[in-house]
Amino acid sequence: MNSRIIFKYIGKVLIGFSILFIFPIITSLIYNENYICFLIPQIVSLIIGLILNSIKLNSENIYSKDGLKIVALSWIIISIIGALPFYINNDASLIDSLFETVSGFTTTGATIFKDVERLSKGILFWRSFTHFIGGMGILAFVMAIIPLSKSDKSMHILKAEMPGPSVGKLAPSIKKTLIYLYGIYISLTITQIILLIIGKMSIFDSILISMGTAGTGGFAVLNSSIATYSSFCQWTITIFMFLFGVNFNIYFLILMKDIKSALKSEELKTYFLIFTISIAIVFFNTINVFNNVSIAFKEAAFHVSSIMTSTGYSIGDINIYPTASRTLMLVLMLISACAGSTCGGFKISRLILAFKTVKRDLMKLIHPNSIQTITFEGKRVSEDTIKSSNTFLFLYIGLLCIMIFIVSFNGFDLETTINSVFTTFANVGLCFNISNFAGFSVLSKLVFIIGMLLGRLEIFPIITLFTSIRKKD
Amino acid sequence: MNSRIIFKYIGKVLIGFSILFIFPIITSLIYNENYICFLIPQIVSLIIGLILNSIKLNSENIYSKDGLKIVALSWIIISIIGALPFYINNDASLIDSLFETVSGFTTTGATIFKDVERLSKGILFWRSFTHFIGGMGILAFVMAIIPLSKSDKSMHILKAEMPGPSVGKLAPSIKKTLIYLYGIYISLTITQIILLIIGKMSIFDSILISMGTAGTGGFAVLNSSIATYSSFCQWTITIFMFLFGVNFNIYFLILMKDIKSALKSEELKTYFLIFTISIAIVFFNTINVFNNVSIAFKEAAFHVSSIMTSTGYSIGDINIYPTASRTLMLVLMLISACAGSTCGGFKISRLILAFKTVKRDLMKLIHPNSIQTITFEGKRVSEDTIKSSNTFLFLYIGLLCIMIFIVSFNGFDLETTINSVFTTFANVGLCFNISNFAGFSVLSKLVFIIGMLLGRLEIFPIITLFTSIRKKD
Repeated sequence: MNSRIIFKYIGKVLIGFSILFIFPIITSLIYNENYICFLIPQIVSLIIGLILNSIKLNSENIYSKDGLKIVALSWIIISIIGALPFYINNDASLIDSLFETVSGFTTTGATIFKDVERLSKGILFWRSFTHFIGGMGILAFVMAIIPLSKSDKSMHILKAEMPGPSVGKLAPSIKKTLIYLYGIYISLTITQIILLIIGKMSIFDSILISMGTAGTGGFAVLNSSIATYSSFCQWTITIFMFLFGVNFNIYFLILMKDIKSALKSEELKTYFLIFTISIAIVFFNTINVFNNVSIAFKEAAFHVSSIMTSTGYSIGDINIYPTASRTLMLVLMLISACAGSTCGGFKISRLILAFKTVKRDLMKLIHPNSIQTITFEGKRVSEDTIKSSNTFLFLYIGLLCIMIFIVSFNGFDLETTINSVFTTFANVGLCFNISNFAGFSVLSKLVFIIGMLLGRLEIFPIITLFTSIRKKD
Repeated sequence: MNSRIIFKYIGKVLIGFSILFIFPIITSLIYNENYICFLIPQIVSLIIGLILNSIKLNSENIYSKDGLKIVALSWIIISIIGALPFYINNDASLIDSLFETVSGFTTTGATIFKDVERLSKGILFWRSFTHFIGGMGILAFVMAIIPLSKSDKSMHILKAEMPGPSVGKLAPSIKKTLIYLYGIYISLTITQIILLIIGKMSIFDSILISMGTAGTGGFAVLNSSIATYSSFCQWTITIFMFLFGVNFNIYFLILMKDIKSALKSEELKTYFLIFTISIAIVFFNTINVFNNVSIAFKEAAFHVSSIMTSTGYSIGDINIYPTASRTLMLVLMLISACAGSTCGGFKISRLILAFKTVKRDLMKLIHPNSIQTITFEGKRVSEDTIKSSNTFLFLYIGLLCIMIFIVSFNGFDLETTINSVFTTFANVGLCFNISNFAGFSVLSKLVFIIGMLLGRLEIFPIITLFTSIRKKD
């Protein structure tokens, strides 16, 4: 392990991160608010960053394990610094500030605020901005601003932060890859902002809601989430939530005019299939509840899109949904959308791989001498990728059980307990029976914070932190 | 595939099965009840058995795939014939009779009867007797009475029916293996009967409750399950439930005076560890509810033992348990006890294998060049066993989700929905919020019936039935 390079890179990341505070400071200045709550963390981040960046290196080599550790440590440090605005502004306690920030960066969108409308514009902007930064990855965002190293070695960092079982470069260099990714990300976000403004949403709200959609976060500007905006805006958000759940490789292929390959994607087809079937099921299951076909359809489409992409916006009371719709939504939370998108959950591609593994191993049981390989997206999948994908699923389920068990001591009923763990671990944010997370104990909130980070970073980076303590190598 | 041999073997099984009806007929005669409800299925079973047994074979070869199919088909046919007594006796509808019988043979113990005390002694005996037969396996029971073939080829059948990731012969021949297994099984049962009689339980109740404990079933003789018997009886049952959750290989080792190897068993140690920790957690979690240390301890020990071994007896109202205890019990249901016992769930040995796989694959991710093998009970585990064990877990979780989703349309709340599926699939029988399964729809009951069979036969045998339809080989 090369701890010097790890801390030096974290230093670079913190320097880059300090620059980002300019945006909420500008917002505060526009609305004549106190910007000190953003200036302090900015200076803290810059100073720690400069100190760490002054570390002299023995070697420039960076391994994949180092990448995992840089990502895990950076997220933890940045979450703590990012929590300072809430705390300095006296908006929340320390644990609540940390919960809100981790919920923001991990694009969960679960809030501890009972009344978000009393928050300042600067703070509201900061909340939604954390979604926007966290969506594509904090480090990716920073790397788009300042290059971490001259060579392509920081690819390990990008790989460690990007969701999905296997991540590839889109372009020959990291820089170009990031330009493509952020080009797509920002273009889609700006398009959504414009459409929302056309739909008569205020400019401020449009920007914040679009940033929350892009990162599939879910922090809202109003206590009623999206319920009071126009139908046009609600449909726009429905569609854009879906779009941000698509693997960004698909958009890259479309940009390269390779629409044929884009449409062939197994993951995209499965995503679309689960999406439409789920809407149909929720629609038919709730049509009697709403007694109105168009409202039932809009609600079904919006909430399926919101939950499946792990966004967590809502346009109505989800607690009136019958058990079947609730159950489906719990399952959708865990599955979520495509790898290589800003979504949470364990991703459709892993579900497909698990399904194919089970199918192959069953065939092997029945026909012991047959040789079967697994292909995905037209390519043969290596046994290592399959193993690590399935290991991830086991870990995912195991961690879910442990978290549910700890939170169950909080005394909420079983449905709320399960749902609160699912919604944080899968980075969704929407939870049946409760409208915010203020009522949970400190222990539960700590579990949620760790769960959100584990869920967003897909477990492995966090685990490497513990292996280094046990084993110096 | 050799369909002649499959049906011939099923014929033999049915002939053997018809003999078993003598026991409820004797019970009916003793209590001066009508025994026609047992005589009809006896004759039906015998006639179908004789017809199928008259099939002439081309070859005596029997493959492992055939074993799986014989087991799956036999269980389905025997469940239908075994349901006749309830239906003929006008105790229940067709679907309810089938539910009750499958619940009996699979040692689930979930009942559709709101009032079991109004049932005749013969029917009560039959319910508990199905637990006793199903516990070690219907076919194993039949094979203990009549040998299916002269050679050891019926080992494939024993393997297909016995629970756990890998099954071995205890003795050099099938016959001796069965003698050992049933020797242990019947000795333990008789010991329990004697102890219960000492504890002032009636002889009839003692026999039935002991058969239900042996098979880890859970059908009771009284509506209050075990609540009104003496404390001595309740503790006796607690201990025997635990004992029937131990892998029978352990008893065999003890009989062979190899106590050292017996105590070394990883699975046994883990079983004991989970068992004691769970009792401690439930005890401390409920001590305030009961306001009485000894009652809280007795209830915790009894219900943890009952749920973990998938028996399903109860000695009090489990609905007063707090969320943490309920959550723990849901997890215990799925894990259950040791492979090679009469328990349900996915067995501790599979949990250990999954845990070791995850650990190995994580180490592999961190140290890509390391070579790690998995050992269990002191032996190296083959990659095929690991794969099939993990495939089983994936299938298990996937099927759970599908069943929960279908049952969720029944309109029960989410906790009851999840619990009802867990308790049937894991062959437990005890369910929070409801005292019997009469209130479910026919569709839900069908899901439960299929789920109980899938759970008891550990999925694979049932799946082979569908592969033969798709692929003639």
